[in-house]
Amino acid sequence: MRDPLAPIPRRPDAWLDSTPMSSHWMPAQPGDKLADIDTPALVLDLDRFDANLERMMAAAAAAGVRVRPHAKSHKSLQIAHRQVAAGAVGVCCQKIGEAEVFLGGGVRDVLITNEIVGVRKLRRLAQLAKVFSGARLGVCVDDFSVVRQLSLVCAEEDAGLDVYVEVDVGQNRAGVATPEEAVELAREVMRHPRLTLMGLQAYAGSAQHRRGVPERRDAARRAAAKAAAARSQLRESGLACEIVTGGGTGTFIYDANGDVYDEIQPGSFIFMDADYARNQADTDAPQFEHSLFILATVMSLRGDRATLDAGLKAFSTDSGPARPTFTGWHIHAVSDEHSMLTRIDESGPAIRLGAKALLIPGHCDPTVNLHDWIVAVRKGKVEDVWRIDARGMVF
Amino acid sequence: MRDPLAPIPRRPDAWLDSTPMSSHWMPAQPGDKLADIDTPALVLDLDRFDANLERMMAAAAAAGVRVRPHAKSHKSLQIAHRQVAAGAVGVCCQKIGEAEVFLGGGVRDVLITNEIVGVRKLRRLAQLAKVFSGARLGVCVDDFSVVRQLSLVCAEEDAGLDVYVEVDVGQNRAGVATPEEAVELAREVMRHPRLTLMGLQAYAGSAQHRRGVPERRDAARRAAAKAAAARSQLRESGLACEIVTGGGTGTFIYDANGDVYDEIQPGSFIFMDADYARNQADTDAPQFEHSLFILATVMSLRGDRATLDAGLKAFSTDSGPARPTFTGWHIHAVSDEHSMLTRIDESGPAIRLGAKALLIPGHCDPTVNLHDWIVAVRKGKVEDVWRIDARGMVF
Repeated sequence: MRDPLAPIPRRPDAWLDSTPMSSHWMPAQPGDKLADIDTPALVLDLDRFDANLERMMAAAAAAGVRVRPHAKSHKSLQIAHRQVAAGAVGVCCQKIGEAEVFLGGGVRDVLITNEIVGVRKLRRLAQLAKVFSGARLGVCVDDFSVVRQLSLVCAEEDAGLDVYVEVDVGQNRAGVATPEEAVELAREVMRHPRLTLMGLQAYAGSAQHRRGVPERRDAARRAAAKAAAARSQLRESGLACEIVTGGGTGTFIYDANGDVYDEIQPGSFIFMDADYARNQADTDAPQFEHSLFILATVMSLRGDRATLDAGLKAFSTDSGPARPTFTGWHIHAVSDEHSMLTRIDESGPAIRLGAKALLIPGHCDPTVNLHDWIVAVRKGKVEDVWRIDARGMVF
Repeated sequence: MRDPLAPIPRRPDAWLDSTPMSSHWMPAQPGDKLADIDTPALVLDLDRFDANLERMMAAAAAAGVRVRPHAKSHKSLQIAHRQVAAGAVGVCCQKIGEAEVFLGGGVRDVLITNEIVGVRKLRRLAQLAKVFSGARLGVCVDDFSVVRQLSLVCAEEDAGLDVYVEVDVGQNRAGVATPEEAVELAREVMRHPRLTLMGLQAYAGSAQHRRGVPERRDAARRAAAKAAAARSQLRESGLACEIVTGGGTGTFIYDANGDVYDEIQPGSFIFMDADYARNQADTDAPQFEHSLFILATVMSLRGDRATLDAGLKAFSTDSGPARPTFTGWHIHAVSDEHSMLTRIDESGPAIRLGAKALLIPGHCDPTVNLHDWIVAVRKGKVEDVWRIDARGMVF
């Protein structure tokens, strides 16, 4: 036994630089079996992912709308390129740092579906537009002073940007409130030659999660009607409105098949999550399957109480805890690095120490953002391990 | 106006490697003013941090216990070294990846207060112990088969490890249930010459957040009594129990001043959060102040409704949303990258577009884990920007 109070010699300084940093630690290698993946890992079922993507692109093609998937869900160049290869025009994102990753990684059309405020951020945006002047980069506005600052920094940086006027279509978050305000702001954009007025951003976030089909459809139609009113007013005022863009996984089928949206922005459909699963399915719309999971290990076991090695740092709980893919057990408590599985009936499997459990995250977007890697699995075998390139890009 | 449907030329391939990756994007530089920090950023008030650390070390010194702060809260070498310089014996962590960071960064005594299960993980742990054989590395156990596997991989890797038997003292998560089981498991540890039986891990997580002082104190005492019973049984059986370690920010004062714990493991005290602030203060114990904040920007404004640029990817909401440091406003909704501030009365400041707001996170540990940087501020000026070295180390 060592003396716990004995002084510990200083480490040789050489260790400092030679130790592998764990963000480079990959939970799996191609060819590994599902059960070999280190935990807690984010696992993507590629067959389901492919099917989800194909269904969305087919539905959009049938409706004649463009698809610009929201990359805030996946933050991955591998996925963005698969979406573009399947026919997406490019991606949306929320942050300049994300746009840097996607443009830098070869995606040629990126829309920041968000307002960017403050000269430091606006200058960074203009610099990005300048570097990628051969690509498309767009941003949303809902304020006059920001349009003027944006124009100024674009002139200073010799850059040009696509601009969308955001209309509040029921989200109560950002965007101008009325068609008249949209016209006034669009006129302001038109005054600045560095800025290209592209159209309207019209996203009804809260509509996505209305549980019943009629409520969800009605919320989507109300949002579309607001967007349509703004578009009419723009056109009557002689202003361009090439693109009305918006819509998400919950409402895309109504958005795509109405006559308002030219482009839809669904994000979660590639993965799905426990929250979206609580939406009543519209049987007239394509169905998406859970493709994204957290793989966890039973690290402690007492009778009908199992502790998993995945907690708040492996999945977000803003839409409830993750849900096991097997019956008979549920997660009743989540702490930083642990989840507590308890038996609720006899229908499920026996659980042994070291067993691995697949969980469906409550909310996919903030869950993906916790991880450095997505382990891409097909038929139980690891096909590839993808970096989550824009993980943590909050700026 | 550009034609939105025009084909976009391929980018020059050179961009791929030359684009700066945004995880290197630092939100501030030393010398910047608070208002210049890019948002959403994690901001640490150094005067308060220093005072919190000093108060904890003084209370522990007065009680005659060792302090091993929990590094899962901060995941930062800068902070770990400050804790050691203030008298901490080393740090705790939860994951092997965290232990790699802290040992690799020069912390010489690391305890993983967690069970490690599975041969792949155990081998990584043994390899780490071998590389840092001049330092102390400990781990917790609550299962016979794991002890035997640990011994095997230690033999294979020519490594030795400190081992603590975890006792369930009320957390209902991991740990053996009875003193008799603790003795049996400790005997098993003693059979393996590569493993050094150090003592008991006894952490009552749920006791930390009991709101009333009497309930919290009683829960701490019940936990300590269970730890004491296991220690007695170990000693009566002729087994070593040099260290009983455990306790957190909510109960440390009772743990430190009882006669059971040799070492306390508080983590959150350096930062505090909105959840700990809901604990009734024990006026006999040192008080800790909020030192950790999210700095956010008002990115859209409509009357008494302001949208901040910090959401689920800038702070965790498992213990409720972040709380403004100013009166008159509260956060009523949080989405991926946004929080909605609404006015609740006239006591607060007027808010303008572009204004910055300081928020107190609901739960510090998972909030820190979302960020790459902590901006260390003293008297309104940036003193340093620290990497969150073990951010995202879930393996």
